[in-house]
Amino acid sequence: MNETGNPLLKGNAVIGQSGGPTVVINQSLVGVVETLRGHGSVEKILGCHHGVRGIVNDQFIELQDVPQQRLDRVAQTPSAALGSSRDKPDEEYCQRIFEHFAKHNIRYFFYIGGNDSSDTCRIVNDLADTKGYELRCFHVPKTIDNDLMHNDHTPGYASAAKFVAQAFMGDDLDNRALPGIKINVIMGRHAGFLTAASVMARHNVNDGPHLIYVPEVAFRLDDFLKDVEDVYKRLGRCLIAVSEGIHREGADKPLGAELAEASSGKIDTDDHNNVQLSGTGALSDYFCQAIRDHMGAKTRVRADTFGYLQRSFAGCYSAVDAQEARMVGRKAAEAALMGNLDGSIAIQRVSDNPYRIEYQLIDLKSVAGKTRTLDRKFIIGGNDIAPTFKQYLQPLIGALPVVESLRIGAE
Amino acid sequence: MNETGNPLLKGNAVIGQSGGPTVVINQSLVGVVETLRGHGSVEKILGCHHGVRGIVNDQFIELQDVPQQRLDRVAQTPSAALGSSRDKPDEEYCQRIFEHFAKHNIRYFFYIGGNDSSDTCRIVNDLADTKGYELRCFHVPKTIDNDLMHNDHTPGYASAAKFVAQAFMGDDLDNRALPGIKINVIMGRHAGFLTAASVMARHNVNDGPHLIYVPEVAFRLDDFLKDVEDVYKRLGRCLIAVSEGIHREGADKPLGAELAEASSGKIDTDDHNNVQLSGTGALSDYFCQAIRDHMGAKTRVRADTFGYLQRSFAGCYSAVDAQEARMVGRKAAEAALMGNLDGSIAIQRVSDNPYRIEYQLIDLKSVAGKTRTLDRKFIIGGNDIAPTFKQYLQPLIGALPVVESLRIGAE
Repeated sequence: MNETGNPLLKGNAVIGQSGGPTVVINQSLVGVVETLRGHGSVEKILGCHHGVRGIVNDQFIELQDVPQQRLDRVAQTPSAALGSSRDKPDEEYCQRIFEHFAKHNIRYFFYIGGNDSSDTCRIVNDLADTKGYELRCFHVPKTIDNDLMHNDHTPGYASAAKFVAQAFMGDDLDNRALPGIKINVIMGRHAGFLTAASVMARHNVNDGPHLIYVPEVAFRLDDFLKDVEDVYKRLGRCLIAVSEGIHREGADKPLGAELAEASSGKIDTDDHNNVQLSGTGALSDYFCQAIRDHMGAKTRVRADTFGYLQRSFAGCYSAVDAQEARMVGRKAAEAALMGNLDGSIAIQRVSDNPYRIEYQLIDLKSVAGKTRTLDRKFIIGGNDIAPTFKQYLQPLIGALPVVESLRIGAE
Repeated sequence: MNETGNPLLKGNAVIGQSGGPTVVINQSLVGVVETLRGHGSVEKILGCHHGVRGIVNDQFIELQDVPQQRLDRVAQTPSAALGSSRDKPDEEYCQRIFEHFAKHNIRYFFYIGGNDSSDTCRIVNDLADTKGYELRCFHVPKTIDNDLMHNDHTPGYASAAKFVAQAFMGDDLDNRALPGIKINVIMGRHAGFLTAASVMARHNVNDGPHLIYVPEVAFRLDDFLKDVEDVYKRLGRCLIAVSEGIHREGADKPLGAELAEASSGKIDTDDHNNVQLSGTGALSDYFCQAIRDHMGAKTRVRADTFGYLQRSFAGCYSAVDAQEARMVGRKAAEAALMGNLDGSIAIQRVSDNPYRIEYQLIDLKSVAGKTRTLDRKFIIGGNDIAPTFKQYLQPLIGALPVVESLRIGAE
């Protein structure tokens, strides 16, 4: 951010959405639009179709005149209404972006996304600086992975965490009714925040998940099998949360990627070299087989991979998350209108009880391309999450559905 | 049912839950308990732990004094609060059941479950008749598969259908944002009702699912690949609903079971010889590979198996379903108290608009062990579901979440 520049910079604005969608990402889009429009400096508000790709392909939709009622409905709609992208612009790509920015007199750029997207944002902004093109460039945070630096949490995470919590609440009850060993594989390439959210399903002693494995701890199959056997012997059932991002000690890629490589000789990656981990049952089937081999073929073992449902399921969202997602969009737009600023909007927690946060403008480079992982204080041994994590997450997801038991035996 | 017997039969009651849990099965349990208790004929109301197994193992919990508020919370809780079972009693097993019934003076028996469970119920009832033991034996319907004969629909189905609909609404939007080919595998061993519920996600032209495959139509991989290619060429994306129960022409088992057999040399079955289809990603991974082989390795192909979430996810239920599940429990208990009756409570639809149903007492043998499949009038060709199915399902699941688009291009 710098102090000079044109205080009332006239021009058009571009908004884009990038990376994996969330159920509240359109709240941020609407937050930007409703704040910008009607402001004298900004004439056209252009949504770019499929992120930066829409800029270089001149695929824009004008948003300044969309009725507020419709915007409000869009805000409630899961997934990226503008379309998303996993493109990572290089120098040449950015040159083309600026040709299009100049052509359309774009002076305000808002990019809603995760850490890959904030890196895209930083590259575009750096190029603007180099060229002396005044551009107010804002990263608006979004990721179910909750892995942005300098943020207490990120919009999109709490809703996905609520999905995981509700899924585990029901699945633990299911696995009591028909006891066995059940593994659920949860999204989270590098950070265990979403997998850790499974701990919200525990209300009483012996509630599952009984074991939780996050990417922050090296995974050892022998320890895992012993853990599962111990719980199963004690309770006659075992519910397990496993992150798709777990990796073996010293491995340079997640176990899921190793399995994919072993089975097909190659791995599916995007332009950010992210390996495909979701949308495949390979990891869960691997665990099922390993447990059956260890415990005997007659053991009831099942596995589900939550997959894309956890980031897009219509109707499951946190009200706090929806509101905060709206606010980060508004705050980015407010900052852009205030002066020659750029940066990323970060959420900082002020207090737990009552829950209170602040929105802060931080440097793009402090968040771009970096990954925050789960604090070690929340990780117990190699297979559990501390109860204090519930205090962190509870205000973000709000009330969970009622569950009540008839308290039968030790179950 | 017969006309003789003791009009005020004094004794105790047993209630059990069987088969795959649903999110509303405890509504039925509570419906039976709250109707029976306080009635002069019934002294103890015993919930048997894990279905018939709880009877022969003398594992009961007394329910007559559980406070109504707690019962109401239990009713809202997913999965079977008493525990469930997949045991199928044979003659010897039934002998043991009756020894325990006699010991506890059980004269009322309510078994909440699907078609396997109604068959269990019929066997127990036949044995009671043979022995001249007066037993008022009721099957209380429950199955997400919606496959009970002589029922317009079954409690549990609508809530699972709502889950499928909401999942597809979100996933279709996700697959628009990051376009590709996406396959979702849905529960339903023999009947396509739950898979057909995916059609509820279609609101506008080009909305997914674009292809729907149910077990009622023989599956041909070549046709499937051509269907997928056609949609993908037209829209640049394709969302597919596939039932776990699909089978190839002339095959004696589902494709998923064939795959499991091929990979491990054996298949996992329960006591009813039902092959394990859920809790594994084998079928979805098979489709991914087949599509990549056909369309090229660079095509973005993903698959999710909805698995146990669709029957147990906490917080996703249909209010109509919850109410009807409560009512079938009450109606069974009311019938049991009226005279020497036995049977199954069936839901018949009287009118669509306004939606109105009636509860009818039907013979156990007319529902026991039989499977209803999706009416052919709802199936279009080999790969789609008719819009009229939405009229059938809409009143059962009620309002779905708002979705709104910004209408960008042909997407």
